[in-house]
Amino acid sequence: MANADSLPEPVMKVAAISGSLRKSSFNRGLLRSAVEIAKEIIPHMEIEILEIGHLPFVNTDLEVDNSFPPSVEELRAKVLQADCILFASPEYNYSVTGPLKNAIDWASRPPNVWADKPAAIMSAGGGFGGGLAQYHLRQIGVFLNLHFINKPELRVRAFELPAKFDGDGNLVDDKVKEQVKELLLSLSAFTRRIQNRVVLS
Amino acid sequence: MANADSLPEPVMKVAAISGSLRKSSFNRGLLRSAVEIAKEIIPHMEIEILEIGHLPFVNTDLEVDNSFPPSVEELRAKVLQADCILFASPEYNYSVTGPLKNAIDWASRPPNVWADKPAAIMSAGGGFGGGLAQYHLRQIGVFLNLHFINKPELRVRAFELPAKFDGDGNLVDDKVKEQVKELLLSLSAFTRRIQNRVVLS
Amino acid sequence: MANADSLPEPVMKVAAISGSLRKSSFNRGLLRSAVEIAKEIIPHMEIEILEIGHLPFVNTDLEVDNSFPPSVEELRAKVLQADCILFASPEYNYSVTGPLKNAIDWASRPPNVWADKPAAIMSAGGGFGGGLAQYHLRQIGVFLNLHFINKPELRVRAFELPAKFDGDGNLVDDKVKEQVKELLLSLSAFTRRIQNRVVLS
Amino acid sequence: MANADSLPEPVMKVAAISGSLRKSSFNRGLLRSAVEIAKEIIPHMEIEILEIGHLPFVNTDLEVDNSFPPSVEELRAKVLQADCILFASPEYNYSVTGPLKNAIDWASRPPNVWADKPAAIMSAGGGFGGGLAQYHLRQIGVFLNLHFINKPELRVRAFELPAKFDGDGNLVDDKVKEQVKELLLSLSAFTRRIQNRVVLS
Repeated sequence: MANADSLPEPVMKVAAISGSLRKSSFNRGLLRSAVEIAKEIIPHMEIEILEIGHLPFVNTDLEVDNSFPPSVEELRAKVLQADCILFASPEYNYSVTGPLKNAIDWASRPPNVWADKPAAIMSAGGGFGGGLAQYHLRQIGVFLNLHFINKPELRVRAFELPAKFDGDGNLVDDKVKEQVKELLLSLSAFTRRIQNRVVLS
Repeated sequence: MANADSLPEPVMKVAAISGSLRKSSFNRGLLRSAVEIAKEIIPHMEIEILEIGHLPFVNTDLEVDNSFPPSVEELRAKVLQADCILFASPEYNYSVTGPLKNAIDWASRPPNVWADKPAAIMSAGGGFGGGLAQYHLRQIGVFLNLHFINKPELRVRAFELPAKFDGDGNLVDDKVKEQVKELLLSLSAFTRRIQNRVVLS
Repeated sequence: MANADSLPEPVMKVAAISGSLRKSSFNRGLLRSAVEIAKEIIPHMEIEILEIGHLPFVNTDLEVDNSFPPSVEELRAKVLQADCILFASPEYNYSVTGPLKNAIDWASRPPNVWADKPAAIMSAGGGFGGGLAQYHLRQIGVFLNLHFINKPELRVRAFELPAKFDGDGNLVDDKVKEQVKELLLSLSAFTRRIQNRVVLS
Repeated sequence: MANADSLPEPVMKVAAISGSLRKSSFNRGLLRSAVEIAKEIIPHMEIEILEIGHLPFVNTDLEVDNSFPPSVEELRAKVLQADCILFASPEYNYSVTGPLKNAIDWASRPPNVWADKPAAIMSAGGGFGGGLAQYHLRQIGVFLNLHFINKPELRVRAFELPAKFDGDGNLVDDKVKEQVKELLLSLSAFTRRIQNRVVLS
């Protein structure tokens, strides 16, 4: 019998979405940092950042002959192919952003492409570091049938010193980078558990 | 001293927003019904339905020289002039819709034009009749500084018989119309309390 | 006509409840501080701290002949007489505490003695300073028909330096004391608005 | 290599807790029904109902020499030994009950005995069938590190005809019994996934 330990770990595709469209967004910066960290340290993770700012607003009137607008179809295909999901979700007015909810709702239209996928959330913001958006997103995830990891929770208090991001929204804080790494490792491990992949020796 | 009872009640401007963009949306139907009911029974209420489907996605990069895109400026001006707010908020995936959140966030940009206004929520949907969206909206309202009425809560189970709406999304159920009326009266009374208008006799 | 400005402001009774039973609780300390601040600076506010640790668990089997256990009757009478409510609500596991929820539920039994009262929340804790408990409490308050003030929100990060409380749970931080004062003034003003008391000149 | 299919499925211990203490509680009735269904149809599941009405209120002053009151120690031991958790959580005032939150908080004291366990929720009630309590419980579960199944969601509208429960709180409705069975099967399957037990062939 083959020794699984000697095989390269199969690729884990991660679909990553930022709830902020702002060019210098801290949350986009968190995603870029996640991509870099995965490349360096968690090579089996392939994180692809999906853009959502060009989608139309959710409106079932736009669904014609059981098909979606092209930009929506593309998003849905990417989500469907992913093994797990990584959200960078800023908190606007104590909840998720409109563009993020819009993308989530499009991809939930039957057949719901989020179904049964593990997921993790990062956020950067004031106050609670975006935490209130995270709990709304988790409630949304119940209907989507996403399996969110519980630990670690990554909430970056972006406006407290020392500065965590530079003027372009790039993450520059080593402690937070370490937290991003821990989050990715936890998402990877939980995804394997949920997928029930067996490592034999 | 003048007898206030003999004076016509001052106009109460209500800004009304539907979270659904669908043409035959039940929630848009609730708003149209509210407009009609107010005209017939609560003449001091002037309900104006504000459209939100043409707004750009929230993105502070679009704020230039302290001004907002024209469609946003228009929405903000309408909200600012209103005495109170009426939301018709469907529930998508256990929360508010993307377009609604997007409009809310634009109007919250400093100076926040929702501040200190009374508000009410109606919703129509499956399951809990949109209730889960209502509680997310209420949490959002804390940051916006909206004062939501607590009673009545209007959640229309739109998919249970007898049919509450016709094929165009028009509300056709007398019981629900009565509930809409009660909601409007409660919003009107709470708005007067909050505004602290005095009726002397 | 009498000049209302020359009259002493009528007493405003505040029923105050801590969700923590611990002797040196920070949240109990917040309440003691509120009592002192009101005495010194807001003399029309009479804050009474209601104890809840001796109540039985909510169980309608204990309601006999339309009456409640004596400790519950006493709590309900105090709440009923209050003009408004002040909660000091720690966050246990991202929500309110069991004893607080238990007291709330007893007082909500028909007739619901919370109905139509203004309310405010303070909390001290780790992470978000108890904030997640506050939003659960606000959702609970919708059914209770409590009118929570939105601003200011008082969340004390009790475990960050400098120390906000001494070893007995007494609030020793001047900035937080100032925030408690602002919260009480906001609760007082909102209570007057809701009660629609008229100040004529 | 042994064929796992021929082996009896290992026992899965389920710790079950009702948030209602009422003798004829519908939610206790749901738990009794779950016990019966497991015995008949899912023999590897051993559901034990844990009582919580005799616990003291959570108060860390009661923790002496790193030990808990005896009733708390007993609850914690039962939870720790369980493979997964089954909550029957009524909704009181749009949230979980005081006694349930109290039990949850005791068992979360370090070391948190809920950690990393799969869990499911049933509820019976008015309106949304207890649904609002379920989402509060799910948020609480993030801190506890519980892994809740997403589907099915079991919310029994207990006050709609036909009667779902008899006067003693026994579940008498076949459709709801079927839903309880589906919930248990889903909990069982998710527990196996999370435990990553391998079935080889």
